[in-house]
Amino acid sequence: MKLSNRAINVQASPIRKLMPFANEAKKKGKKIYHLNIGQPDIETPKEMLDVYKNYEDKVLAYGPSQGLEIYRDNLVRYYGRHKINIGVNDIIVTTAGSEAIIFAMMTTCNDGDEIIVPEPFYTNYNGFATMAGVKLVSLTTYAEEGFKLPASNKIEAKITENTKAIMLCNPGNPTGTVYPAEDMQRIADIAIKHNLFVISDEVYREFIYDGLTHTSILTIPGLEDKAIMVDSISKRYSACGARIGCLISRNKEFMAAALKFAQARLCPPTIDQLAANACIDIEAEYFEGILKEYDKRRNIVFEELQKIEGIICVIPKGAFYIIAKLPIDDAEDFAKWMLEEFSLDNETVMFAPAEGFYATPGLGRNEIRIAYILNENDLGKAMKIFRAGLEKYKNNRT
Amino acid sequence: MKLSNRAINVQASPIRKLMPFANEAKKKGKKIYHLNIGQPDIETPKEMLDVYKNYEDKVLAYGPSQGLEIYRDNLVRYYGRHKINIGVNDIIVTTAGSEAIIFAMMTTCNDGDEIIVPEPFYTNYNGFATMAGVKLVSLTTYAEEGFKLPASNKIEAKITENTKAIMLCNPGNPTGTVYPAEDMQRIADIAIKHNLFVISDEVYREFIYDGLTHTSILTIPGLEDKAIMVDSISKRYSACGARIGCLISRNKEFMAAALKFAQARLCPPTIDQLAANACIDIEAEYFEGILKEYDKRRNIVFEELQKIEGIICVIPKGAFYIIAKLPIDDAEDFAKWMLEEFSLDNETVMFAPAEGFYATPGLGRNEIRIAYILNENDLGKAMKIFRAGLEKYKNNRT
Repeated sequence: MKLSNRAINVQASPIRKLMPFANEAKKKGKKIYHLNIGQPDIETPKEMLDVYKNYEDKVLAYGPSQGLEIYRDNLVRYYGRHKINIGVNDIIVTTAGSEAIIFAMMTTCNDGDEIIVPEPFYTNYNGFATMAGVKLVSLTTYAEEGFKLPASNKIEAKITENTKAIMLCNPGNPTGTVYPAEDMQRIADIAIKHNLFVISDEVYREFIYDGLTHTSILTIPGLEDKAIMVDSISKRYSACGARIGCLISRNKEFMAAALKFAQARLCPPTIDQLAANACIDIEAEYFEGILKEYDKRRNIVFEELQKIEGIICVIPKGAFYIIAKLPIDDAEDFAKWMLEEFSLDNETVMFAPAEGFYATPGLGRNEIRIAYILNENDLGKAMKIFRAGLEKYKNNRT
Repeated sequence: MKLSNRAINVQASPIRKLMPFANEAKKKGKKIYHLNIGQPDIETPKEMLDVYKNYEDKVLAYGPSQGLEIYRDNLVRYYGRHKINIGVNDIIVTTAGSEAIIFAMMTTCNDGDEIIVPEPFYTNYNGFATMAGVKLVSLTTYAEEGFKLPASNKIEAKITENTKAIMLCNPGNPTGTVYPAEDMQRIADIAIKHNLFVISDEVYREFIYDGLTHTSILTIPGLEDKAIMVDSISKRYSACGARIGCLISRNKEFMAAALKFAQARLCPPTIDQLAANACIDIEAEYFEGILKEYDKRRNIVFEELQKIEGIICVIPKGAFYIIAKLPIDDAEDFAKWMLEEFSLDNETVMFAPAEGFYATPGLGRNEIRIAYILNENDLGKAMKIFRAGLEKYKNNRT
């Protein structure tokens, strides 16, 4: 039976495709430190978990396709605190950020249309683009240059008659980049000049270090009909399993069309939305405490990586990932080897090979993404194991 | 800003698009009996709701992309009780049946490929097909003939070089059809002869009246590499808000490709899966009780509809919908009018205009779908209001 081309071509997630090797290693009694996936160990807020405990309805019913009204009302307040002024009808609650990205791509692009995206980017944009038949046109950025956005004329050179949008992840997964306001304005200017949508993935809004500030795409004047924001509570409240995100735009035509896609799938999960709703008034101190914790982790990982001869990486300014170029040829082979053949005191480390975070063929083959989502102690151990493994792998393979 | 063609063309859900009119009516204090959506009033099993209450993990984490292992293990047992023998790796847990359908379409079809489907069909197949760029090629069936499947040569006449699958809903939404084993075998024979997939939506397995038996696509010998089943717990456990379904096939290549799509979106909701898992051993008596209740409702609706002069409908054999041809021209106009202009003792009824349940343009314009998901008392009242409304509408408009 012949499958579709998209089914054959869609990439296996570099974050998840090595899980069978990890499971095999676990069966053999090996302990694995998971730095492959952005699953924080931070506790989910009690406010949120209490909603599940206290759910009293007798029938677990569908909600509205655009999301529960109470939750959307409260989201307006949440965004207002971040100086993002939107109305309740500018929001569609989605099944995690993933669905918001799919709706954004489907609504802006025909099969064969193009979206310009700085690479390396969140790897699953590749999968969603394959589903939507969208061609991701990459703007390569480099660790050596702090993953800085290219000059505007270089971005404009990528625009064709099929370009429908520019897509950004800010703060960036996997780069840790936080785009300065000037860069966001540059993107906006290009979008206005060429009549393009800007799809901005802002799920790491709360995770910004060194006192930098975040510029949401929704705060740029003149971009009201072009700005589309994708969000998720997965990282914000360490609630990856709730699968609650949202799609936001002030473009009424865009929202009406996206709502039709949303109606087809009926609604996002009901109790999980109520649980997300309970987090709206979590105070700034909560995030400050978590940010301090991640800051420490960031420094541990960066310092440990710096000890590796020939490594190229830059200290992340946001999110909780770091992408690093290793002094080896094939990071996926190394990642598998770490699971299958290496251990230190019967422990090893899993991380994501980074080739899948690029659209340009061949790029990222010697790079990896590390998610610094473990506590200091575990992270320190994991990085020691990582360095020992890399040393041994290099000696074995070269 | 120009949107994509699919965004412009995707149909608004006939089940949900009149909700703004309903909300308007509610604001004016009108009570509405909702027969538009398959949201049962049956209580969600206590076993399921208790899982939410008793969730103890501190971190609401991602699960595996294919679904929690414990749940998939238990699903194998559930299907075994229904004489559907599958292995744990034949199952991917999805975010409701909706996502399973999207994955099935994306994995089998390229943009522009065709799926043959008896119409009227579950209306959201239209939306999912638009997302996937799939053309639904309809096999029209008629109330006058009990929505019987056409003869095999008529089905084969629809096959082109672009046909990739035949899709069925059994028991049928909105027709209430339960396909006899001979019909399922006929479909299987055609699929084998022409090398097509068969996508079988079996979410109403438990809702079959008059002692008829269900033939799952997965029980037909020789079809192992072609049979794809879509399922959901929404109706089975009256848990529409949990958004848990699954995609099942013994075709390993198909499942490996579908898993790549599943990995891109990371995972289905975690606690909701655990809640679904708690229902696996709910006993046959539970479903017998519910079936008795629905059987009564079915009879009320059918008897009330039979009192209408010029109506054409057939008594449903499964699921909890009935589709009826009314002695009017425009069922959508009538549905709106019922919300905006009609009431009886300040109460009215909402139902789904059926044009969106067809792929053939113009068909179904004078038809509606009624979901008989209210208790006998409410349903009786709703049908009385419906008949009074229809009478008045006919007199006003003709």
